[in-house]
Amino acid sequence: MSQAIYEFPLNEKVRTYLRLEQLFKQLEQGKAAVEDWEYINFLDCLFTLLDLTERIDLRNDVLKDIELHEKNLVIWSKHPNIDEEALQFALKKILRLRESLRTNKKVGAELKEDRLLSSIRQRFSIPGGTCSFDLPNLHYWLQQPLAFKKQQVQAWLDELMPIQQSMEVTLSFLRERGRFTDVNAEKGFYQGIAEDKNELIRVLAATDQGYYPMLSGNKYRYAIRFTLFVANMNGSSAVDSTVSFKLACC
Amino acid sequence: MSQAIYEFPLNEKVRTYLRLEQLFKQLEQGKAAVEDWEYINFLDCLFTLLDLTERIDLRNDVLKDIELHEKNLVIWSKHPNIDEEALQFALKKILRLRESLRTNKKVGAELKEDRLLSSIRQRFSIPGGTCSFDLPNLHYWLQQPLAFKKQQVQAWLDELMPIQQSMEVTLSFLRERGRFTDVNAEKGFYQGIAEDKNELIRVLAATDQGYYPMLSGNKYRYAIRFTLFVANMNGSSAVDSTVSFKLACC
Repeated sequence: MSQAIYEFPLNEKVRTYLRLEQLFKQLEQGKAAVEDWEYINFLDCLFTLLDLTERIDLRNDVLKDIELHEKNLVIWSKHPNIDEEALQFALKKILRLRESLRTNKKVGAELKEDRLLSSIRQRFSIPGGTCSFDLPNLHYWLQQPLAFKKQQVQAWLDELMPIQQSMEVTLSFLRERGRFTDVNAEKGFYQGIAEDKNELIRVLAATDQGYYPMLSGNKYRYAIRFTLFVANMNGSSAVDSTVSFKLACC
Repeated sequence: MSQAIYEFPLNEKVRTYLRLEQLFKQLEQGKAAVEDWEYINFLDCLFTLLDLTERIDLRNDVLKDIELHEKNLVIWSKHPNIDEEALQFALKKILRLRESLRTNKKVGAELKEDRLLSSIRQRFSIPGGTCSFDLPNLHYWLQQPLAFKKQQVQAWLDELMPIQQSMEVTLSFLRERGRFTDVNAEKGFYQGIAEDKNELIRVLAATDQGYYPMLSGNKYRYAIRFTLFVANMNGSSAVDSTVSFKLACC
């Protein structure tokens, strides 16, 4: 049976973090770019990420999270039976991140001041707006030696590294908070009550049974409804049978 | 010396054609997609292309062009010394295209009715809006066997084939209309008068001399100005020297 994890955030912050995580994964591909269209994809993804980070006070949210992780690690360090070495390693990483976030004025501020990036960014919102007549300077840049382009891509990525790493740490702590347990959704429907600190609902479900989960909810309660990928002969997308799946509340 | 061709359209139609050509090139990569992010890129590009084609009466423009090519080919066929075989081949291709364009109601109409595409399209305009919580049905689709996904991608591309081929034919005829000749731009500036049927200015210029061309103009006249990629010590981007380049008016 093939399965996949579907993740549903219960608040805006985690929603943004998950979006950023996906964009960062895609951005990583820029390091291996060779063809023009790969660089254009990379830049498109970079601008999307900057759009997203500019809307919210990301640095403060992330800094708060990091400080919370630090506190938790200190509390755990007092437990007996703890892997002292692993904990010290995690703590050092957290402290390094906190430091680089504090000294960093604003997420991506350097990127916003980058001469090339700022001169081409606007055109990327035009459908197909990256032709040589739209952006002859980008076209010129694309003709430069591969080593030079790789170096610039790396420098741009380095600029975002503290945010990327903080996101990784925070989401991995968050995901570890919940354990998958078996549950059933009668007629494809399941209702749950979110506990105090739940921020993320994870659903591990089959991907070869013709249905996928959808979640609606808030920080108090949520409902998962399994929906047919292809509607049945009556035109309905509702699942009639009982769906067994795994659920983790994080 | 490394060089590149910069293309500048003189009217809106050719501008759109060039944009579509670039998008089609990128769309071709979808055939080789394996990873989730590659499929997401493909879909993003597909929706951009649909956005662009919906704005204009593309089918009529393209049909007019194709009928003009047909007329020209018939005129050429009366010349002596013509490669009869090559001409018949081109003519057959044109007639096939005209036929499939005429029977096709509207560019991408089938794609607009596609259940999956129409249900996910809107979310693609949200920065990072393709996470599993945004689009659980896309997430489900991405988990399907590679062969199934490849087949769907091919079916979607087939739908756009007549437009893609017409674009290729029209742009290749257009580009063949002009021959590159050597010209000089004193102090990086060149002014030209567009002839009656000129629709595209092509500039073949060095890409290792620190400058790139920009064009402003309309169907009567145009100006090419070479600009420094990195401003000089006085903060100016103007090129002082004479720039030798090749120019083709098509």
